[in-house]
Amino acid sequence: MTKQFDVVVIGGGPAGYVAAIRAGQLGLSVACAESNPYADPKGEPRLGGTCLNVGCIPSKALLQSSENYHLLHEGFAQHGITVSDAKIDIATMVGRKNKIVDQFTGGIKGLFRKYKVTFMPGHGRFVAAGGAGWKLDIGGEAVEAKHVIVATGSRSRPLPGVPVDNETIVDNVGALDFKAVPKKLGIIGSGVIGLELGSVWKRLGAEVTILEALPTFLGACDEAVSKEAWKVFTTKQGLDIKLGCRIGEVKQGKSGVSIAYEQDGKATTLECDKLIVSIGRVPNTDGLAADAVGLKLDARGFIEVDGHCRTTLPNVYAVGDVVRGPMLAHKAMEEGVMVAEIIAGQAGHVNLDTVPWVIYTSPEIAWVGKTEQQLKAEGVAYRTGQIPFMANGRAMGMGDTTGFVKMIADAKTDRILGVHIIAAHASELISEAVVAMEFSASSEDLARIVHAHPTLSEVMHEAALAVDKRALHF
Amino acid sequence: MTKQFDVVVIGGGPAGYVAAIRAGQLGLSVACAESNPYADPKGEPRLGGTCLNVGCIPSKALLQSSENYHLLHEGFAQHGITVSDAKIDIATMVGRKNKIVDQFTGGIKGLFRKYKVTFMPGHGRFVAAGGAGWKLDIGGEAVEAKHVIVATGSRSRPLPGVPVDNETIVDNVGALDFKAVPKKLGIIGSGVIGLELGSVWKRLGAEVTILEALPTFLGACDEAVSKEAWKVFTTKQGLDIKLGCRIGEVKQGKSGVSIAYEQDGKATTLECDKLIVSIGRVPNTDGLAADAVGLKLDARGFIEVDGHCRTTLPNVYAVGDVVRGPMLAHKAMEEGVMVAEIIAGQAGHVNLDTVPWVIYTSPEIAWVGKTEQQLKAEGVAYRTGQIPFMANGRAMGMGDTTGFVKMIADAKTDRILGVHIIAAHASELISEAVVAMEFSASSEDLARIVHAHPTLSEVMHEAALAVDKRALHF
Repeated sequence: MTKQFDVVVIGGGPAGYVAAIRAGQLGLSVACAESNPYADPKGEPRLGGTCLNVGCIPSKALLQSSENYHLLHEGFAQHGITVSDAKIDIATMVGRKNKIVDQFTGGIKGLFRKYKVTFMPGHGRFVAAGGAGWKLDIGGEAVEAKHVIVATGSRSRPLPGVPVDNETIVDNVGALDFKAVPKKLGIIGSGVIGLELGSVWKRLGAEVTILEALPTFLGACDEAVSKEAWKVFTTKQGLDIKLGCRIGEVKQGKSGVSIAYEQDGKATTLECDKLIVSIGRVPNTDGLAADAVGLKLDARGFIEVDGHCRTTLPNVYAVGDVVRGPMLAHKAMEEGVMVAEIIAGQAGHVNLDTVPWVIYTSPEIAWVGKTEQQLKAEGVAYRTGQIPFMANGRAMGMGDTTGFVKMIADAKTDRILGVHIIAAHASELISEAVVAMEFSASSEDLARIVHAHPTLSEVMHEAALAVDKRALHF
Repeated sequence: MTKQFDVVVIGGGPAGYVAAIRAGQLGLSVACAESNPYADPKGEPRLGGTCLNVGCIPSKALLQSSENYHLLHEGFAQHGITVSDAKIDIATMVGRKNKIVDQFTGGIKGLFRKYKVTFMPGHGRFVAAGGAGWKLDIGGEAVEAKHVIVATGSRSRPLPGVPVDNETIVDNVGALDFKAVPKKLGIIGSGVIGLELGSVWKRLGAEVTILEALPTFLGACDEAVSKEAWKVFTTKQGLDIKLGCRIGEVKQGKSGVSIAYEQDGKATTLECDKLIVSIGRVPNTDGLAADAVGLKLDARGFIEVDGHCRTTLPNVYAVGDVVRGPMLAHKAMEEGVMVAEIIAGQAGHVNLDTVPWVIYTSPEIAWVGKTEQQLKAEGVAYRTGQIPFMANGRAMGMGDTTGFVKMIADAKTDRILGVHIIAAHASELISEAVVAMEFSASSEDLARIVHAHPTLSEVMHEAALAVDKRALHF
């Protein structure tokens, strides 16, 4: 007999596995299909998608390892700590990363058992309307579902004419698994992935050159942040970032790659041992058989959805990287929760305006809400408060005073419109701003809330005070 | 002519210097008296009080140094990082700490100039009512003030019969300035200061024994936290903490100290090279000449104040460690702001119920609001959600998964009543909970707010979900 479920989730990444778990918690019968090539010890596809297998989690493991190694060389002497003969074994570092990935992807299978989610290894696609609602094919097996949640995620955008072999020319997947520190590392694309991975290998000793097509650096960030980031990454850390590059022929030889490019009308060639291609990501919608059922995609291949992630088909939802909005795991997870709750008859909801963004470089970059340039373009009257970590006791104690918090509030109502941080632990500091914005807090609210001393969070407090020109410690 | 001011602040610690700066910002003429023995290069007393000179700031500098040294030995191998011959030079470590203190205490003098606060080196005391309002003596100089803010802080509570020389038997002052790592370090008192300083020297190699008079450990913390802290500090970190000790004779010899004590009816002696006495702090009110003007103190020497830090005398306020409430720098600073604003005719306010507490051990401990045992005693019906960092991707990436977040919410209204954290960076993670509680947030509010992935803050999110038994990742 054909398997029938209340809900079938296609894709077991952050959007999909969370939707499946939440649906299971709510008493729905639910299956989750996953077909990625990352096999676990049983030979089954791993759950967790890009994020857990080849994204957020493994990159943060390597960032920490490389950061520790860097601190040993650059940060410990001031404390009176000296060592001789510091070495890093790349195999151990990568092995640790793999172990963490194993543990977490395996953990999701455990959660599936706990919440009675049926895991179906195999590629999921639509077949037709009918049966319980929708007929699907999962790895060759016919399945029927009342509700379908598409959560097929995204993949690295290919650069035409530059085949990724994940040995010499790599995307986010191969860049996490280098066997040794490349002497010269080239990166095409100075977005989040290029910067995070470039930082990892730079700290371990690689000479890193990043070629960026756009004339601006980190254009999505508040300009004060991108300016500071540029200064830190290029001047202090020695990343060689070239903007406004037109990439020409990329030739792979025996010992490396040569990338012809033009900058400021001048043709040059970059020679490197390894090349990371990180020019964005595209949604995984081509294997869904969307046409077979009339599921509407937009011109760029994303599934069209409304504010509640409903597609153009009844009882078919899409969440995460396959739909509009930031390609961020936490946005995807919340959409997963929302859709599961809507299917169960509850009132799920995601506020895209308060989704925090994080770039895990060192210093980290995090923000929520509008940038100053967005508000200018929208003609909104605002006030800003910006406080450096230089004046913060905890940052000084830690030995890292890089960066600042910038708060932007409405000039009339004082409501916080955006908070922008570049600093150590920015990813954690932003959560307070997200909570404040969810409560429509004013800058004065944060200015009047006690912040523990001595903490980095006090810079948020001072930035809030600075909006009203009454910072106490600056 | 006698100097006259709108406001004279007696004491230049966190409560006092902040009150003075805020008063200056608000256009009041203000002087701040300080007479501590910590002289700056000009021979003037340093501003910043206990916190900046011999408290929060220097201790955090040493905590970071010792934490780095500890990581080098215990934490780096898993990343593939190996070193030989790791050493720490205590003089460099202490010198770095001193430099940070110099910079910050000097920085406050700069802020005084910026906000037109007159710094008056010298001991401040009341003389009589009269003149502009109150006649004072500051270092022998007669001064008149319309308003007086007493911010004289606190000092280490002495242990009768145990003279502190700050060489062999030390309090918080001497424990920051050891010239070498003591082989055997004894500590009387397992409170915040004993634990923080004990951790510093333990990580650097000292054998640390802490004698505590009370039968319970960290009684102010939620019991789940104190239980976890006990386990981590004693079992994992090897601090030898002995509870329920009756301290007998303390003898200082040539090579160290011997402390006779009784535990469980058994008399023993602890021999150590250095002894830290950290049995609490007492308010500095004896030099104020409170009697001369009839300023009312309570039985324990604290100045009596109302919710707005008004004393029993007109236009005399008292803030910080000399009044009721937690002896925390951030509570003191907010009281300073409040009082300056009230004097300027504004509506200052401090909510003692949302003052966060932090203990800077490793892992850090931080909390806000009520503990479970307090709520039980009050007969309040509550629900709790507790999630370990073990299931958190960022913690795993960092290589430190110790601890948990425990959230307590009202069983009927779901309003958050307390949040308790023991974990790396707990001091930063707590700020989100403070903001949430200031907005009377429910646990469901935090459960529905997007938290960046992968961050430690996600454990707060999961704890909020767990209150409603719907954690997604546990």
